[in-house]
Amino acid sequence: MDYPNGQAPGAPVRSGIPEHGRIPKYYAVKAHVAALVEELGEGQALPAERDLAVRYAVSRETVRQALRELLLEGRLRRRGRGTVVAGPKLEQPLSLASYTEGVRRQGRRPGRTLVGLDRFPCPAALAADLGADAGEPVWHMERVLLADDDRVGLESTYVTEARVPRLDTDFAPDSSFYAYLRERLGIRFGDADERIETVLATPREALLIGTPPALPMLLLHRVSRDTEGRPLERVRTLYRGDRFSFTTRLGAPR
Amino acid sequence: MDYPNGQAPGAPVRSGIPEHGRIPKYYAVKAHVAALVEELGEGQALPAERDLAVRYAVSRETVRQALRELLLEGRLRRRGRGTVVAGPKLEQPLSLASYTEGVRRQGRRPGRTLVGLDRFPCPAALAADLGADAGEPVWHMERVLLADDDRVGLESTYVTEARVPRLDTDFAPDSSFYAYLRERLGIRFGDADERIETVLATPREALLIGTPPALPMLLLHRVSRDTEGRPLERVRTLYRGDRFSFTTRLGAPR
Repeated sequence: MDYPNGQAPGAPVRSGIPEHGRIPKYYAVKAHVAALVEELGEGQALPAERDLAVRYAVSRETVRQALRELLLEGRLRRRGRGTVVAGPKLEQPLSLASYTEGVRRQGRRPGRTLVGLDRFPCPAALAADLGADAGEPVWHMERVLLADDDRVGLESTYVTEARVPRLDTDFAPDSSFYAYLRERLGIRFGDADERIETVLATPREALLIGTPPALPMLLLHRVSRDTEGRPLERVRTLYRGDRFSFTTRLGAPR
Repeated sequence: MDYPNGQAPGAPVRSGIPEHGRIPKYYAVKAHVAALVEELGEGQALPAERDLAVRYAVSRETVRQALRELLLEGRLRRRGRGTVVAGPKLEQPLSLASYTEGVRRQGRRPGRTLVGLDRFPCPAALAADLGADAGEPVWHMERVLLADDDRVGLESTYVTEARVPRLDTDFAPDSSFYAYLRERLGIRFGDADERIETVLATPREALLIGTPPALPMLLLHRVSRDTEGRPLERVRTLYRGDRFSFTTRLGAPR
């Protein structure tokens, strides 16, 4: 029986140690701190940077680099001036169109804060997705997504004024848009095409979500239709990469 | 009609400019270079760093920071000693279990290179997913994924020796594992649970895939069953975040 790369059998191959070449010093510290994180458990405070530097006999800058990666990966979180062990990432089912419902299922309290609501003439590039004529008025609503009052994402929704005439006066922007469509306008979400990628947060996005700049994010593009198959909206949602994962179920290949 | 944040109407809100606060200098350069990238088009060479520094009246370090983000986002690629405009990301349908088939559909040539094949006693944590008893022999096969000879990912497959007895002698590791299961063993992929997240490449992974260290990656965890519903394999696939996106189709909420 062989043990791959000298690590625990069956462990995912995340040991990160090149088989040849030098192990980066910060990475060795990161591995030590990661083990410490496992030991401590969620919500527990990490020792101060200077103490970790002494413990592992490295510079504080080296400790900082190790912590930075663990923060970006969502294994640590800042709390006040200290650093604590983070909980697991939220697991959002991709099959669920509704952010609100997905967060609730995980026992967290969903919320949304309005950043801005604008109306502008539909550009040609957006027209087909919205079932609109170029130039007709469309809404752009931008909201910060919350889970238990933490800012976890940023969502831009594009929809025509013709479909949602009173979005500016009739809709409470901290509530679920799909619930509004369903209950007030009788429009039901039917299906959607989605694309997921990883991108870096821009400075503006980082500011709005309150993340470190250049944090890797998960970006979902959605083009949806109602139950009649009519184009409904285009949505662009940015989720904190350190706080979210997405789950899906694959059927047999078609 | 309002125009959000002074940008082109309907443009995705990626302008990156904080509404208050200072615009980071490197980010202004990044925006200029991104516009240049659009103009130039795929495969065209970017001017040298020193020329960009002169053009935008900034230091070479500032240019380098801007280029680094565009490289991480997959909008630029290194070619030899120069930098060229990258093509669009590969769009892999999540509904497709097979990497081989997904890459082929996009007109690219799929390939795989074996990193290692090991056999070890099944740890308790893996047993349920593989339908195995703890301690019974399981394979761990690690392969680099290729598209047109470019290294684009790293895949670890765990499967019991009982199900695939001659994986070490009978299977060509540069071929499709699902094709082998189907054609040689009569095992057909049935369904799977998947989870997607973004992680940073470890130094070892970066070395194997040939990416810059700490490149954001898309990580897919898969637990699959055959058409009989019997546990089949656990797979962990890391895709370059600058080269891949995933697409899916959502149905009506259940």
